Formats: sequence, structure tokens, C-alpha cells
Amino acid sequence: MDARLPSLEFEHSWFLRFLADVIAPPSSLVALLGQEQATIPDVLLARTERFPDDTFLIWGTERWSNAEALAEIGRVAGLLERLGAGSRSRVVSVLTNQPAAIWSWLGTLWLGSEYVPLNHHHRGAILEDMLSRSRARILVTESSALPWLPALRETAVETVILVDPTGAEVESVVAFNSPAEVREQPAPVRPGDTACVLYTSGTTGRSKAVLVSHNQVVRGAARLVDAFGLRADDVFHNWLPLHHLGGQLHMTTTALIAGGAVALFPTFSRRRFWSEVAQARATVFCGFSAILQMLMSQPESELEKNNTLRVGIIAGIPAPIHDAFEKRFGLVIGENYGGTEADPLTAAGVAAPPPRGSFGNAAADFELAVVDEHDNPVAPGNIRQDVARPLVADVMFSGYEDDPRATLDAWRNLWFHTGDLATQDEDGFFYYKGRLAHAIRRRGENISTFELEQIVRSHPGVNDCAAVGVPSVLGEEEVKLVVSLNPRTYLEPEQLRDFCAERMAKFMVPRYIEIIDTLPYTPLGKLDRKALSTVSPETWDGGEIR
Amino acid sequence: MDARLPSLEFEHSWFLRFLADVIAPPSSLVALLGQEQATIPDVLLARTERFPDDTFLIWGTERWSNAEALAEIGRVAGLLERLGAGSRSRVVSVLTNQPAAIWSWLGTLWLGSEYVPLNHHHRGAILEDMLSRSRARILVTESSALPWLPALRETAVETVILVDPTGAEVESVVAFNSPAEVREQPAPVRPGDTACVLYTSGTTGRSKAVLVSHNQVVRGAARLVDAFGLRADDVFHNWLPLHHLGGQLHMTTTALIAGGAVALFPTFSRRRFWSEVAQARATVFCGFSAILQMLMSQPESELEKNNTLRVGIIAGIPAPIHDAFEKRFGLVIGENYGGTEADPLTAAGVAAPPPRGSFGNAAADFELAVVDEHDNPVAPGNIRQDVARPLVADVMFSGYEDDPRATLDAWRNLWFHTGDLATQDEDGFFYYKGRLAHAIRRRGENISTFELEQIVRSHPGVNDCAAVGVPSVLGEEEVKLVVSLNPRTYLEPEQLRDFCAERMAKFMVPRYIEIIDTLPYTPLGKLDRKALSTVSPETWDGGEIR
Repeated sequence: MDARLPSLEFEHSWFLRFLADVIAPPSSLVALLGQEQATIPDVLLARTERFPDDTFLIWGTERWSNAEALAEIGRVAGLLERLGAGSRSRVVSVLTNQPAAIWSWLGTLWLGSEYVPLNHHHRGAILEDMLSRSRARILVTESSALPWLPALRETAVETVILVDPTGAEVESVVAFNSPAEVREQPAPVRPGDTACVLYTSGTTGRSKAVLVSHNQVVRGAARLVDAFGLRADDVFHNWLPLHHLGGQLHMTTTALIAGGAVALFPTFSRRRFWSEVAQARATVFCGFSAILQMLMSQPESELEKNNTLRVGIIAGIPAPIHDAFEKRFGLVIGENYGGTEADPLTAAGVAAPPPRGSFGNAAADFELAVVDEHDNPVAPGNIRQDVARPLVADVMFSGYEDDPRATLDAWRNLWFHTGDLATQDEDGFFYYKGRLAHAIRRRGENISTFELEQIVRSHPGVNDCAAVGVPSVLGEEEVKLVVSLNPRTYLEPEQLRDFCAERMAKFMVPRYIEIIDTLPYTPLGKLDRKALSTVSPETWDGGEIR
Repeated sequence: MDARLPSLEFEHSWFLRFLADVIAPPSSLVALLGQEQATIPDVLLARTERFPDDTFLIWGTERWSNAEALAEIGRVAGLLERLGAGSRSRVVSVLTNQPAAIWSWLGTLWLGSEYVPLNHHHRGAILEDMLSRSRARILVTESSALPWLPALRETAVETVILVDPTGAEVESVVAFNSPAEVREQPAPVRPGDTACVLYTSGTTGRSKAVLVSHNQVVRGAARLVDAFGLRADDVFHNWLPLHHLGGQLHMTTTALIAGGAVALFPTFSRRRFWSEVAQARATVFCGFSAILQMLMSQPESELEKNNTLRVGIIAGIPAPIHDAFEKRFGLVIGENYGGTEADPLTAAGVAAPPPRGSFGNAAADFELAVVDEHDNPVAPGNIRQDVARPLVADVMFSGYEDDPRATLDAWRNLWFHTGDLATQDEDGFFYYKGRLAHAIRRRGENISTFELEQIVRSHPGVNDCAAVGVPSVLGEEEVKLVVSLNPRTYLEPEQLRDFCAERMAKFMVPRYIEIIDTLPYTPLGKLDRKALSTVSPETWDGGEIR
């Protein structure tokens, strides 16, 4: 018998107890509700009861107080109920960001139904597939989406609610603003019950339907409120789509919990951003790496000076511009790391910022680790997949709907596999290193496209770039680099190749290099890597690298 | 911003690191292999290389040294390979405990194939279903099982290997002892690869096919070796079926790691037990509550005096007889808690015994908690389901084959739900309280049949008993008690009812009481509750309890 074991047992048990003690509930949630788990209607009700006259939503020149918002939510719930929705039934939507998208979402939850908001950019077979999979009998949409809708008889949809009906349409659809009996009280739901089904973008394979519970949204938002010090006098500049967790959790539920107002915008506009901020007197904004870089690349303007913003919730702050961004715009930005399956997984925030470039360490509700392909932890400094595990119930997705195999694959060894590459430093801080699916496999080496691109971006002539894998005749892949250059810059592929060769491992140096005008991005700012991964006889080929 | 958060983050991160540091690998495994994860062939090879002449297996008067065992295992692997088995293919068996069951199991693994040992008690549709689900093309069985085998054309089985062929059968089957080229080296497999598919008994619904990895068996066995102080001079009295994890992990792989010998027996026999122990000079035995009670109920014998046993690995030691058992037989017994999905979940052992009646606290490789139906932890003293989570990779089953939904249901919130009821005391020790599925639901109360039965068993006239739920006209269930009495005892149902009423909550007191000669048990000692759960007009009915 090993003499260490008895004391080990003691330590271990003691640790678990201590660990349980230190998982303090989000203080903002406890302050609002006096409880550690909650539904979204719980939050709506508590917020409105305490501060009925505070502003909840700003849309251009229109404003809704908490009480007015709740009346509208109750009316939409009443309308949906009259049309046959109820506990556990589904409502699907195809909507751009607008107040009706907020009322549809919250009205559906108020009724105890589940909300399936689809990305309004989808078309054709994908949209039809998502509508069918949603199982919803009621669709809320807008007239601009009608030309793109598939034949609804192939889906379960029986009723279409139109947020902007014109004369020609009113006979076959229900107008969103139809009067309905206001449902005063929310249907009884549990914090762990499904609130939304959110489709992940599905860059690899069919998109997955993520089952998101009420508590996942509420508790995640409360953690952000605590970590970013969000307050009742904050105005949240929300351009994030409401069909994503970002629009729902990061920029709306946070406001409900903190007590602030949501200034809603249809999309991100680098041209309009500072005038929107000024008009709404916004104090909180959100975004990711590309948003920061877009704002930095704009010439300095009168509007940006003395802007009202004070804090930004950012996914992936490029370390080199972190300080410059804060200094130029007079605000602080902090890291947020997570995904539709669980968010935030770290609690970097702004009160205890991690080292520049790190997305923080594990949030209070999660364990986080970097593991190899067999789920064994790797030593600090190694770049492998990061995995997470909830320390409390109902803070992580409850599965991919109708895809238990994908869920199990994501949950093997009872870790949630994020699909991201990360590394951890000696102090426990995590650093993002790209998507696992975007790693290029060359001669037995895994190359992080993220890291390769970071090096290429450091070239003063490079505006944007992407590294992709292309099939190799030797098996596995070759590295292809696609670059767009800054104005008035001239660079030959050879020069870029030499620049790379001086700064990265030999196996990372791109064999193929293509210089193009603009890289292809999706409306949400995701790079379309597939469009880049072809090689033609015209593609510059540096030959086999030895 | 809550001022606790920064320090919380620090503490939390520090804890996880410390926790990782204290998960010491099983010292017996490191001592044997110098590694923390292993396959079963790794263990076989290391054991044989170091101690080729030590005894591995004892069967009556026959003995095999490690070297002889490995030669036999290599020959069986060669035979299976010649018959078409190979990496990742399946071999199914229907065998009673005998040396061929050991060689089939280990020979299959040596070849890199997966082993599916079926319980030889199965018959008819269940056996046919399991054979089909196994996907095996090779079946190893014995002549006594042939009458019960279904038509194999409905399965994937193409070849039958018979361990005891008679003249009449040799034409259609392959003899197990056919000469074959000995496979000297094991096929390359990883510790996380599937070693066995083990069917759980399926008392509720269809039995589930548990995917068990090499490492799960090896590391679990090594934890037992450490916790029970098992040694190279130990002889393991193994009557546990080799088609269960008990026979494989607890009583064979432990011996391989500790360096002891396995004395194999076909089944447990209370009559033969002490002579078997004497003949094999066994030092380690195993069993569960009923085995201890059977041995205690036997009159004292010459053989039991000065018996060679020194330690028992027991699942569920009844607290009242713990000391008396140890004293009477001059040995120590320790608790083992786990299931086919993960074992041992606790590391009670004998070196650091938990309080009497407790099955210990979490083993070094697991977290263990008691949670409510929403997976929220309950305070000490509450009886709810216990759940477990692995702290390292590949120590828990990787899923129920072909049943991802059952797997996900068992893994919700990324906890493995054991299906057991347990409670934890203020010091972190766990106490078994029966199966969740055996809880009786009466008027909104969950009644642990285990607890109810413990009280009834304390009646001096009661030999054995079972509490079962029977459907109530009021909805939910009524409590029925079935009792067998000690010899020369006479008891009326009313007396038992009054005995209960004085000692338990009103809602637990049985309404129906039946007195029978013997309770129905399966060969492995599991009570057949289904057979007891009927009520006829003849059943004594104490009426509605208010």
C-alpha cells in the first residue's frame, strides 16, 4: 500500500469541498433575484418590477421602458398562444435585428415555448432544412425574407407572422402587431429547460442545432456583468445578430441583469459606428478582432473624440493593438472567450485583465484544460485543443438536437471539446491559436493557420491574409497563403516567402502564394476558407520545401 | 465588479493545478510499467518478462506459469487470426468460468480485437439479440451452451470455436485447442481503445452494451491493488464471472499487476468455499453483501479456522456484521464501489478504511457527488443519486454501443449518473442507499427500498426480505413487502406491519405483506424484483395508511 494514498484521499476530498465553496454565484444575478439559477422570464420580471420606468430598448429615436417592453412581450406571448403555441412548442424566426426580433424571442420564452432564430442570410436548401428541423408550427419573419423562403408545406410551419405586412400579404399571414390579450405572467419553466435552439455556422458539415437552456444564457450573462463591471447606467451598443448567442446573451441579457439599456442596430457599420454611439450615448460595445482593426484603420474623426464608450467585450483582441486601441478611443477592452455551447468559458473581463494576448483563465463555472488527441493534458506551451467542463449544472448546452453522436463526440471523456486550438502558459492563462479544423497537416506536423497568419500580418505591406491547406501529392497537405496588400504596396510572392522563411519553422513556410484584392468574408466576419483552397497552374508555386 | 472575483479566479486556477498534481498515478502500475496508462497486453508482457516462472493461473490441480499463460494466449491469438479475426474485429463468447475463458479473453486482446463475453445464463431472444449486436464473426463457446444457442445465420457469426468438442461436433466447429502459430507480440493498441463490450444486466429495459477500454480495466485494477495492498504472494480466489468486469478487473487484472496468482472457480459455492480456499491457499477473496451473510450463516467449521485468506474486496459490507466477519475469519474486508461503467469510483480499501457502512470517498481518478434531479448538489445527509466524473482520460466507459441517447442521458451535465442512491456525510464519506430504479414513489415521497429492507432485516425472525412498489389506484405506488422467515419462526403480517410502523416514517410502512419460503435471486445474487411486484386478492392488505 502506497503511503501517499491516505493523505491523497484526504486532500482530494478537501479540495472538492473547497472548490464547491469558492464557486461563488454571479453576484449580479444574486443581487437581482436572490437566486443562483434563473430563467429569462425570471430576469425580465424582476427587472421590470424594480425599475418599471427605466429604458430597456433604444431603436433609432424610439424607446421602450421595462414596463412597456414587458407589455409588448406579454402581448406577443398572447398572440402566439392564440395561434396555437404553448409550453414546449417551437417558434421559428427569420428576422434581421429590429425590435420585433427582441419581442419574438422574449415573447416566445414568456409563453414557455422554445425559440429557433435562423440566420436571415440563409437561402435555399439550408434554410429549408433548418425550417424543417426546427419543428416549429409558427414562423415570424419580415417581408424582405419572403422571396427566399422555401415552400412551407415541406415543413411543420402552419402560420406565418409578418412583422411588416403590406396590403398584398395580409390575407395569408398574421400581422405581428395584431392585438392580443396580454399574458401577464410567464409560463412556469425551469432554469435548465431549453430556451433556444441555435444553429452553429457549420463550416464543417451540416450545421448543428445547439440546445441552449434559460440558465445558460442568464448565468453566462451574469458572469459577463460581473467580469466587465457592467452597470445600470450602461447603454449597450448591440449590433450582434439576435439569432446568435452574442446578440441574446452578451448584449441583451447582460443589460437586463445589469439594468442597462440596449441600443439595437441592424448590423455593424464602420461608417456609422461613431454616430450610432453618440446618438444612443452608448457606453458598452462588443465585437471581435476584425471590428477592432476596422475601427483602427479609419481616419481619426471628430465623433470618436470624447465618445461615450467606456468598455468593450471582445472576442480575440490582437495583442499588438490592445493598448493603442484603448488609448485612441479612451476606453478599456476585455477578452471574452466561449461559443454557442458555453459562454463565457473564461472570465477575463476588465477588472483582472490577463496578460496581453491571453483570453484569460477558466471562468468560475468551468474547468478548462488543453489536451492532446487522447484527452491527456499537455504541458504549458503546447498548442492543442482546449476542453471545458461545467462545475455547476445547466451552464453548458444540453446537446446537439437530433445528433446524439455529434454530442457524444464533443463530450468524449466527459469534456466538452471546443474545437479550438489553445495553449496555456506557466501561470495558467490561455492563448487562442485558431480552430482545430483550420489546422493544416503537413508531413506529420500540425500547423496553426492562426499563428502563421499572425506572422504574415506583421509584414507592413500586408493588409489581410489567410493560410489554407491544399491537398498534397505527397499525402496530407501543402500550405497555401492568400494575401491582400495595403494600398500602394507592391510585393512579389518570393518576397513574402522569404519573409516567412526568416520567421517561422520550415514546415510552416507556404509553398503556394496568391495575392488578391480582398479576402472573402461572410456577413458575420468569418473568412470563407473554402473559396481560397484551390490551386491552379497560375498559382505561384515555390516548390517543395526541404 | 465584485471584489471577490479576482481572488476567486486565482484560487480556482491554483486549485486545478494542485488537483492535477495530487492525482498521483497508481503506484502499482508505475512500478510494473513505468507508465500511467496501459493496455492489458502491456501488463501481460511486463509481468511475463519479469517473472516468467511465477504462477498465473490455478484451476483445480492444474497450474500455468506466466510464460505458459502467455504461450497459450499467443496460440489463441494465432488461432483467432487464422480464422479471420484481426485489429478491431470482434470475438464473442458464451462460456462458464474456466481457463479457456481466460485464454479467449486475453488472446482476443493480444490480437488487437475486441472481446464480447456474454453471460452463459442468457437464453432465447435475449441471447440472440446480444449475439447479433456483438457483430462478432467468431464465437467461442462450450458444448453445454450449444442447446441454447439461437440460429447463428441471423447473426454475423461464421465460425464457432468449441472449448470441449466431442466427436459428433468436430466437423462443424473448430476445436479450441487446435494448433496454431503462436503470435509472439501483441497487436498495437492504445490504452483508450476498446477492450471489451460488456452487457449490463438490464433490469430496466434492454441491456446496454458498455464499451470498456484497456486503460479502464488496467488503471481500475491498479487502483484496487494500491487501495487493498495486494501483493505478489497473493492468490486471488476468483469465482466472479469472467463475462463481468468483476472477474476481469477485480480478480484477474489485479493479480497481473500485483504479481499474484488467480485461482479460478466456476461459481460461488458456500459449501465448497473454505475447501477451495484451503486447496488454492487463497489469500484474497471477493464478493458482496449476500456472500458475507451466506458465509456468516454457515456453522463454524474446521476448515475456516486458520484459513489462508487475508483480505476481501467487497461491494456493500453490511455495517452490523463488518467487525464480526473480520473477527470470525481472521481477515480484513474493505469496500469497493463502482459499476461496469467505471470502477473503482471510491478508494476505500483497507489501508484507510472509511466509517463502517460507508463505501468511502472519491477515488483519485474521479470526482463524486450527490445531486438532485436537476443535477444540483444536495447538502450532506440527503439521499439522492450519486454522479461521477473522470479526472483523467480513459478511466470511464466510452459509451453504450449503438445507444447514444442512453449514453447522453447518463452523461447529462457532463456527469456520469450511476443510477444509485447515496448520501454523503459531513466528512465527505458516501453511503449506499439502493438503486434509483428501485425507489418506490408513494404520495410524492421517494422511498429507498434499501433502507426499508434494512429495517425489516433487523427483525430477529426475518431471514430475507424485499420491498417493491406496486401500482396504486391513487396513482404512483403502494409499498409491498415480501419476507422469508428464519426456521422455526412464526410471524403474522400484522406483526411485521406494526414492527415497521414503530421504526419508519408512515409513508414507508408497507400496505401489502407477503410471506414466502425463499426470495427469487438470479445466479449472480441479484434479486428478481419483477417476480415479486404483483398483488392478488390473497395478498395481505393492511389498507390505506394515513
